[in-house]
Amino acid sequence: MGGEANLKLPDLGQVDIGGIGGRTLLACALIVCLLGLGFGVMTYGQLQKLPVHRSMREISELIYETCKEYLVKQGKFLLVLWAFIAAVILLYFKVLVGFSWGKVAIILAFSLIGMAGSFGVAWYGIRLNTFANSRAAFASLDGKPLPQHRIPMKSGMSIGMVLISVELLIMLGIMLALPGDIAGSCFIGFAIGESLGAAALRIAGGIFTKIADIGADLMKIVFKIKEDDPRNPGVIADCTGDNAGDSVGPSADGFETYGVTGVALITFILLGVHDPAVQATLLIWIFVVRAVMLIASGASYFINDLVTKRRYAKATRMNFEEPLTVLVWLTSGVSIALTYLTSYLVLGHLTQAPGIWWKLSTIITCGTLAGALIPELVKAFTSTKARHTQEVVKSSREGGASLNILSGLVAGNFSAYWLGIVIVGLMSGAYLISEHGMDAIMAAPAVFAFGLVAFGFLGMGPVTIAVDSYGPVTDNAQSVYELSQIEEIPGIDDELRRDFGIDPQWSLAKRMLEENDGAGNTFKATAKPVLIGTAVVGATTMIFSIIMSLTNGLTTDMSNLSILHPPFLLGFIVGGAIIYWFTGASTQAVTTGAYRAVEFIKETINLDDTNTERASVEDSRKVVGICTQYAQQGMLTMFLAVFFATLSFAFVEPFFFIGYLVSIAVFGLYQAIFMANAGGAWDNAKKIVEVDLHAKGTALHDASVVGDTVGDPFKDTSSVALNPIIKFTTLFGLLAVELAVTMTNRGQTGLVHVLAAVFFVLTCVFVYRSFYGMRINTSLDDVEDLRVPENPSPLDDTNYSDEGPQLAAPPVTGPDDVVAERDSQLAGQKAGE
Amino acid sequence: MGGEANLKLPDLGQVDIGGIGGRTLLACALIVCLLGLGFGVMTYGQLQKLPVHRSMREISELIYETCKEYLVKQGKFLLVLWAFIAAVILLYFKVLVGFSWGKVAIILAFSLIGMAGSFGVAWYGIRLNTFANSRAAFASLDGKPLPQHRIPMKSGMSIGMVLISVELLIMLGIMLALPGDIAGSCFIGFAIGESLGAAALRIAGGIFTKIADIGADLMKIVFKIKEDDPRNPGVIADCTGDNAGDSVGPSADGFETYGVTGVALITFILLGVHDPAVQATLLIWIFVVRAVMLIASGASYFINDLVTKRRYAKATRMNFEEPLTVLVWLTSGVSIALTYLTSYLVLGHLTQAPGIWWKLSTIITCGTLAGALIPELVKAFTSTKARHTQEVVKSSREGGASLNILSGLVAGNFSAYWLGIVIVGLMSGAYLISEHGMDAIMAAPAVFAFGLVAFGFLGMGPVTIAVDSYGPVTDNAQSVYELSQIEEIPGIDDELRRDFGIDPQWSLAKRMLEENDGAGNTFKATAKPVLIGTAVVGATTMIFSIIMSLTNGLTTDMSNLSILHPPFLLGFIVGGAIIYWFTGASTQAVTTGAYRAVEFIKETINLDDTNTERASVEDSRKVVGICTQYAQQGMLTMFLAVFFATLSFAFVEPFFFIGYLVSIAVFGLYQAIFMANAGGAWDNAKKIVEVDLHAKGTALHDASVVGDTVGDPFKDTSSVALNPIIKFTTLFGLLAVELAVTMTNRGQTGLVHVLAAVFFVLTCVFVYRSFYGMRINTSLDDVEDLRVPENPSPLDDTNYSDEGPQLAAPPVTGPDDVVAERDSQLAGQKAGE
Repeated sequence: MGGEANLKLPDLGQVDIGGIGGRTLLACALIVCLLGLGFGVMTYGQLQKLPVHRSMREISELIYETCKEYLVKQGKFLLVLWAFIAAVILLYFKVLVGFSWGKVAIILAFSLIGMAGSFGVAWYGIRLNTFANSRAAFASLDGKPLPQHRIPMKSGMSIGMVLISVELLIMLGIMLALPGDIAGSCFIGFAIGESLGAAALRIAGGIFTKIADIGADLMKIVFKIKEDDPRNPGVIADCTGDNAGDSVGPSADGFETYGVTGVALITFILLGVHDPAVQATLLIWIFVVRAVMLIASGASYFINDLVTKRRYAKATRMNFEEPLTVLVWLTSGVSIALTYLTSYLVLGHLTQAPGIWWKLSTIITCGTLAGALIPELVKAFTSTKARHTQEVVKSSREGGASLNILSGLVAGNFSAYWLGIVIVGLMSGAYLISEHGMDAIMAAPAVFAFGLVAFGFLGMGPVTIAVDSYGPVTDNAQSVYELSQIEEIPGIDDELRRDFGIDPQWSLAKRMLEENDGAGNTFKATAKPVLIGTAVVGATTMIFSIIMSLTNGLTTDMSNLSILHPPFLLGFIVGGAIIYWFTGASTQAVTTGAYRAVEFIKETINLDDTNTERASVEDSRKVVGICTQYAQQGMLTMFLAVFFATLSFAFVEPFFFIGYLVSIAVFGLYQAIFMANAGGAWDNAKKIVEVDLHAKGTALHDASVVGDTVGDPFKDTSSVALNPIIKFTTLFGLLAVELAVTMTNRGQTGLVHVLAAVFFVLTCVFVYRSFYGMRINTSLDDVEDLRVPENPSPLDDTNYSDEGPQLAAPPVTGPDDVVAERDSQLAGQKAGE
Repeated sequence: MGGEANLKLPDLGQVDIGGIGGRTLLACALIVCLLGLGFGVMTYGQLQKLPVHRSMREISELIYETCKEYLVKQGKFLLVLWAFIAAVILLYFKVLVGFSWGKVAIILAFSLIGMAGSFGVAWYGIRLNTFANSRAAFASLDGKPLPQHRIPMKSGMSIGMVLISVELLIMLGIMLALPGDIAGSCFIGFAIGESLGAAALRIAGGIFTKIADIGADLMKIVFKIKEDDPRNPGVIADCTGDNAGDSVGPSADGFETYGVTGVALITFILLGVHDPAVQATLLIWIFVVRAVMLIASGASYFINDLVTKRRYAKATRMNFEEPLTVLVWLTSGVSIALTYLTSYLVLGHLTQAPGIWWKLSTIITCGTLAGALIPELVKAFTSTKARHTQEVVKSSREGGASLNILSGLVAGNFSAYWLGIVIVGLMSGAYLISEHGMDAIMAAPAVFAFGLVAFGFLGMGPVTIAVDSYGPVTDNAQSVYELSQIEEIPGIDDELRRDFGIDPQWSLAKRMLEENDGAGNTFKATAKPVLIGTAVVGATTMIFSIIMSLTNGLTTDMSNLSILHPPFLLGFIVGGAIIYWFTGASTQAVTTGAYRAVEFIKETINLDDTNTERASVEDSRKVVGICTQYAQQGMLTMFLAVFFATLSFAFVEPFFFIGYLVSIAVFGLYQAIFMANAGGAWDNAKKIVEVDLHAKGTALHDASVVGDTVGDPFKDTSSVALNPIIKFTTLFGLLAVELAVTMTNRGQTGLVHVLAAVFFVLTCVFVYRSFYGMRINTSLDDVEDLRVPENPSPLDDTNYSDEGPQLAAPPVTGPDDVVAERDSQLAGQKAGE
């Protein structure tokens, strides 16, 4: 036992590849990272300097300020959560392993660095998006589509390059600067910190954004106003949410995934590979391949940009999805080619396992292909051209919101099947290759193969992040345009001509912004399953580290990993419970928050015909406050439930815990895919109704808005948070189970079981609170509030169209007589039949 | 290999318990079964003879005739499906095992008997329900609540007793009449037939009933008519569906579950217990306990009936749920006491394992308790008093259908967590007991323990079935009342007084019928998770038979059952894909069918103020035709996909298949619980709005109807079909994997892999067809059809209230001008803002 102690880095200096020392090679990788960072600094400046009208800049700065407030609050919160983790790290490394204070401090520092990394890239992403959104909005005015593509693309690429570079830089730092006997533990600490940060930011951001989004969307049905109506105080919160959720989420998640996958592979190499020389070579190979893939992404971006610029320089229309698709496939091709080349150069000389270079390259290619294939498959369920999405629209025609919801769920279910089968297919391919002689240099080659597939999933990381970050910018750009009310500014045409040399094309600009938003949506949807996929594929490799430690390097207790070992089976069953709970709890936080937001907006919004003013900043901030409140409350409760569940299940029995970890990875995979794509289908079904059928304001549109709002927490809260939650549980579980095993070995079995019970009670308390403590705070005894009069209140009367609202009307005060009247009306109606 | 050959019954004659021979004891059990059947015959006559007015009898006979047509069609269909299974049975037992034609014929005959059994009890159930529904409706007229309870209770109990008695009778017949060397195989054949029948009837019935239900329900929103409006041609289909789904389903499912759990235990005893004397004693014990539990159920019913009769003889109001709850807990207590007593008498003398009697009894008690606890827990998420259900209502107030849907999903998710934890808790209890010395007489005692828990789940089978069958009767009674239009018959008051001695209390009768329907709903909801729970708990034991055969009685290849064996892990992942697909496919069949039904009903329904006529029988039959068409088409496609998936995955690799089986059981458990309880919460949220808040016809009501219709396929199609599908896959998989292994052992590895690929392609074809072949058959190119005018068509205009429909209005013909007008209106609207 005590797998941690084995996580000792080999001497990297001993490796010599084609006359170059291992450390020199890693130093080259370091330079690549610095170049990547340089790209980031350059693009930052470029984006900031782009021309923009002050009315738009004001809005984007307001959004940034709101985001900053939100992030500062989240940062403080993260430190609280970190304290929980730090306590366990301290207990384990100091008390049980017996490391010196200095060493423990370094590990703790790296867990903080990991968390700060997730947090930092999220912040960088928001800063860049809030430059890019107003610049893109402004650039739309002269009616040329090219800048509409290039601005969000550049900001996305900047985020992607910076994110991956920072990640690699830190990891190289650990490899090169720290002594071998502590580097392994620092990797673990770093990865735990990363996934803690990503998990918390994903959950809170996901709740925040969807409360705001639902709040703003439902107003479309209730008051028949358009999206981004400046009089709606929910719009600023919605824009902030787009950043807090759709930008912060993928950045932090991508950072975490990229890092954790790397750490899983490093850990495997240290535990599963026997020969230190091979170990060192493989470690160097991992880092060099990553650096090379960074180059591949950068180069592909520049080539694609050049081609696009040439092709669309004078165009007045363009298909915004096309250059994004080309970029993904181009990067994919370049990455695959460079992977084979690099692997040949680094691993070609390994006589211990001849041909290992092409085997490993082919396995990685299974993953890289997934990164390009999965998006294509996702389109079959969620794009506006998909037959599933069209079915959602069709079924709504006769069946309204009811059949709309059911058809969307069908799309999600079918996508889970097909994506699941594809992922299993790619894993099977990797497994079959790993069966050919790789066992000469390592134990359990299939596990390494699965890890490499996950590695390949994110091989073209910068591009994956870039196309994902494209969406929030284009989404915001539309909002910034509307909120700036630039068209209403007196003498604006002259001003633009004079100060910017632009001849504004108002209606063209709006159409372009809408089209580009559609492209952003599509690519946002396709990137999700890629991140999700890494959870299950990568988790296998991480779980392996725990197994290695529990079985003394696969020598003892192996029968406990069998399905016939009842605790293992029971652990497997429990995993499902946690995934379903998590889905429910995250949805509940959104539901309660959205209820409050809708309630507040309905009370506050001023839609008098004479009113053309924007909603006050004060009201807007109040909506932001509601979102923040439920986001933080929900996140804290859920985090603590997960934290104590991990501790409890690790303390029950180690192999029960292994079953649990496998289970949450597999359950999480399907649940996440299902929810992400059902949400995508509903979203684009609404787009079909709005854009293709021009049916805004009709009953069909109302039905499609219901579907879209149901899909909101599906695709942007629950599903996307599962990936970091699974990773966090697995990584933190590594410590938790070591703790339990060490205590058991010291004869404290009784205490371990008592603690398991205590932790379980605590997790149940937080599970209980995640519903009963998050409920809508009105009483049903207060029955009158819920009775709805036949004639809505005056406010509604003026705003409801003939077809009326899909939503229940607000409560009436003093309703006793109204209700009595209703009852008699109903009675009369019945009698009349 | 060749586990089948080991399934040889020991000599039961050698056992001597307290001076009574084993065969004599089984003969006593046989007599108990005959008494159970006698109870059935008696109650059949009693129910038929109850007084009923001809107007009501006509309706219930019309429902029965429609059901009969449906069942005859299903019967023919079942024979087609059986041919697929028969081919595999033949191939395996004749070609590979080399049984004589005579033996193979007997096994085939028993597979037919199993299927006929599932089909037969379903028919019996429908016949009894359609007696009971009109009798209950008629009995309501004199305003006394007691008969409202007693009639459905008696018919339910009759179904329960007959079902369990027939099952036991057949199984005892196999034990007593067949030679030991073929009895084991006959059990397997019988169980496969049962689960084939149950799976097909569950799927088809589930689709049928929910198409009709949604079709009828949505009319409430569109036309603001009440439930069971006789002018609605969908009402007869809805009543038929209540029987085809809610009555046929549980009967066939209960029959299958009871049988398959028994067969799993018998198989375990034959494979896992070493000493033939102990084997024989345990087999006898299993059957005697079952017979005794039959007595427990019957006795509890009589006691409860006596007490209820005395207590409510003169009452004018009663809480209909109360006597049902009392019956469940009473039976549970009696069963537990008798289990200990019987076990002591039969197993007390077993010197090989002292104390085994109380250990096994305690393990069974874990299951029996579950049968009483799970219903209580389900109420916490679905009853009208539950905070989850109330949250659904509350959230709809501000958030309409959107938040209604989300809150219902939350209820389902949380229920999956808590029920999952309880089931794991009970299984853990059983496992811990099994660790104490039971390994002296058997291999893998925990597996036996899990099987006994499943056995205990259904220990009070007749009562579980009875309370489940209560619902369809009370539901139908309400409809029969409305459809009979008895109040409109001239001179009816005098006629009733003269011919029946009844002084009719019209409004009291209607209220009572509605209240009793609520009680029926609740118990229908609570019985589902009990049947579902047996799937995962019982599946473990069945899978064990396959494992025993694959590992030569746990001696070889044990490491392949480990999570580190990649095919096992990959099989695990694939299982999830199938469960999500099945959920989607079953929902799709309902969606398309409901679309067609709604379309037809909207066209046909005649709501002129002057029309008081019932919808024509011809139109009603057309709706039944639509339901039948999609039910059969859906069922066939899904069955074939499951059939070929089972063959394919069994042929890929045996341990891949084991992983797959474990996975579908666990995934199926959670998905089924989630869907059943989300559906229950939506259903009862609607009841709160209708009954407690008297808010029919309001926007709040519309929102709750949307939730209810979304929940329809959740709770009554997808979730309930998963249990028999899992059992069928496991049982049929036993043959499939034996087939593959035998072929591999004969050196046909290549052929096996080719077949795996071919079967996989076939399964993908049917998966593909289950969506793309079941789509709504209109085109989106036909864009005009989907555009919805601001003013609905005239038909709707007259019927929509001010608050308007939630549904999209029907398409308009010649819409070009309308659309043009809309567009210009929209443009004007925008400009005006």
